[in-house]
Amino acid sequence: MTSTPPPSGPSSLDPEIAARLKRSADGLVPAIAQQYDTGEVLMLGWMDDEALHRTLTTGRCTYWSRSRGEYWVKGDTSGHFQWVKSVALDCDADTVLVRVDQVGAACHTGERTCFDADVLLKDAVTDASPGQ
Amino acid sequence: MTSTPPPSGPSSLDPEIAARLKRSADGLVPAIAQQYDTGEVLMLGWMDDEALHRTLTTGRCTYWSRSRGEYWVKGDTSGHFQWVKSVALDCDADTVLVRVDQVGAACHTGERTCFDADVLLKDAVTDASPGQ
Repeated sequence: MTSTPPPSGPSSLDPEIAARLKRSADGLVPAIAQQYDTGEVLMLGWMDDEALHRTLTTGRCTYWSRSRGEYWVKGDTSGHFQWVKSVALDCDADTVLVRVDQVGAACHTGERTCFDADVLLKDAVTDASPGQ
Repeated sequence: MTSTPPPSGPSSLDPEIAARLKRSADGLVPAIAQQYDTGEVLMLGWMDDEALHRTLTTGRCTYWSRSRGEYWVKGDTSGHFQWVKSVALDCDADTVLVRVDQVGAACHTGERTCFDADVLLKDAVTDASPGQ
């Protein structure tokens, strides 16, 4: 996969957040977009500091596109915006969870979520409490 | 962040799936764990082919720990297993979504999810449909 890293150097992100954020070697963190009311996991994108800053301040979910090597406001071309409801870091500060209100389809294929079409395992029956 | 890549070489993963899977440079894909009934996003871990194979076949969510450099069956030390209900790839085959039944807390801090404690933005009021 061709992957273009984001620009290095300072961003507009709150320095307190930037100091805590743990990025991968390419300067990015995975960002999970979840529909705020239904709980659907819509997609996973990647953010650098600047994309996180824009997501926190513009109300629209903004990613770094590794394939195109540019910032990407979800919906700018499709109209399928993700309106930001809340943003959280995980316990290691290396993953972002953005709860959004998704306009239309989240997936470029037209599916509601990016995880609808390629199911590897379904309705697994496991004993959820062995020995309990 | 110190990050140890998984072993290279063949795994037991179904070759048809392995042929489609798009891994990052370190041979991993991000894996989102979601509580199957409530929709809570619990955590994000990392899987290589073998971890995905074990997740698909053992009923327990298995990750590659980048910090410890070993396979990690969620719950083996804490008892907080993730019993696998379904597994899906996203449209680019570079992210896994595992719906699980989480025993107890997903987060090592004792929080139910890894995204509960570090909220950057809450209850944002955005106009979800400007111009519509």
